[in-house]
Amino acid sequence: MSYARQMLDACRRTFNVDAGLLAATIDTLNDCAQACVADTGCDLSEQNVKEMVTCIRLCLDCADVCTATAGVISRRADYDADVIEPLLEACVAVCKRCGDECERHAQMHQHCRVCAEACRRCEHACKELLNAVK
Amino acid sequence: MSYARQMLDACRRTFNVDAGLLAATIDTLNDCAQACVADTGCDLSEQNVKEMVTCIRLCLDCADVCTATAGVISRRADYDADVIEPLLEACVAVCKRCGDECERHAQMHQHCRVCAEACRRCEHACKELLNAVK
Amino acid sequence: MSYARQMLDACRRTFNVDAGLLAATIDTLNDCAQACVADTGCDLSEQNVKEMVTCIRLCLDCADVCTATAGVISRRADYDADVIEPLLEACVAVCKRCGDECERHAQMHQHCRVCAEACRRCEHACKELLNAVK
Amino acid sequence: MSYARQMLDACRRTFNVDAGLLAATIDTLNDCAQACVADTGCDLSEQNVKEMVTCIRLCLDCADVCTATAGVISRRADYDADVIEPLLEACVAVCKRCGDECERHAQMHQHCRVCAEACRRCEHACKELLNAVK
Repeated sequence: MSYARQMLDACRRTFNVDAGLLAATIDTLNDCAQACVADTGCDLSEQNVKEMVTCIRLCLDCADVCTATAGVISRRADYDADVIEPLLEACVAVCKRCGDECERHAQMHQHCRVCAEACRRCEHACKELLNAVK
Repeated sequence: MSYARQMLDACRRTFNVDAGLLAATIDTLNDCAQACVADTGCDLSEQNVKEMVTCIRLCLDCADVCTATAGVISRRADYDADVIEPLLEACVAVCKRCGDECERHAQMHQHCRVCAEACRRCEHACKELLNAVK
Repeated sequence: MSYARQMLDACRRTFNVDAGLLAATIDTLNDCAQACVADTGCDLSEQNVKEMVTCIRLCLDCADVCTATAGVISRRADYDADVIEPLLEACVAVCKRCGDECERHAQMHQHCRVCAEACRRCEHACKELLNAVK
Repeated sequence: MSYARQMLDACRRTFNVDAGLLAATIDTLNDCAQACVADTGCDLSEQNVKEMVTCIRLCLDCADVCTATAGVISRRADYDADVIEPLLEACVAVCKRCGDECERHAQMHQHCRVCAEACRRCEHACKELLNAVK
């Protein structure tokens, strides 16, 4: 069981969304952030770094937005729709963009294939949570 | 002149928004994140920490969202409306919430008064940038 | 297999330390950061929040230092001892402090028990990597 | 007066170092992190991005370490030497490295000149604080 789930189960807060969904989303956000940070490092080591510039930029953006979102949803007792909804929307959008761009390089660079997968999973998880909180 | 402005002026990117507005927003986002991180530390030292719990939580959220937003808008060559707009909306919402909560404690705690001011300025700057990119 | 390991295996960089050790350390750092962010939220919801103040402060510090360390070691092609060694030392120290403090609350709060475990594992992983890079 | 200074002056904590020095260090750390985030974006837009790879990597590391350090020193009531000293040492080292690398590109890229200056100032501020806490 992931730390996110163990922490949620041990925590005094009452959530207005399913704890399993919430924990899965937090894990997926953190995995995506981690993959994007690592992919940036890998991209910078490639011979064709010039063609990886958009990928690097999007990975940095995606890592930033996913980390902030994981923090906010880990922390809140009651979800403030005005903050959570646009934040999850930004997350869905940046994961989609970053996943699309990583996929373009997936055949050439295995690390981009892995990162694309992490972005796709995060995009879906954030969409699901967005539906659940709406 | 702030580093944000100096960097923008020295940077090869063409922006579809005014560099002065952009630099001011980046500075205000970073100031707000910094004030919120510091306010968390100050709140935790107060005798009435139990009454400061919502303030602490909101300051942590506000710092996370402002830092991510500053990163994204510092980094992008061309603004992707799907990401930037909801991110700025989340920022406006969390700055408003955090500013309101800090203001409630402003008479008792000077540090909350200072933080409320940083949140207000950031809320306004993000609204302005949001209008400019829409 | 974790994303950290998959990314390392797919990445063009040559590491002067074992990829398994490196990936395990990155995973443990990210797990610890995540547990600390979550524990902060749980602590803030407790009746005895006044007694949790040191725990909250240390969790916030620990999350910050672990996140930075994970970023630096995910990103570097060649390890710069001047940066990596003191950073890992700071990580070991803050994980030890945070783990000790969480353990003090472990009987009363299950979430602190979980967080203490994440901190202990991270302390050990960073010590091992520190020995490997020295 | 910067927010860092205003917050410190308003905060109940007693510091074992001069508040002016502390506030100046926090401001300098945040300025440096901000300059490094922006410089990454500018470097990625340059024609000679292949030669900027080390600069980008170091700017990302420097931003991470400075942000974590600013958080830790903004937050602590009493400075734990085991954490603060190696963290400041890591900061001094990464600012020196990043400053040196940025300086190599300073004639070609004005944004690297600005970033080098931010790194130098931060390196000095962290050294001064390190001397004061030792």
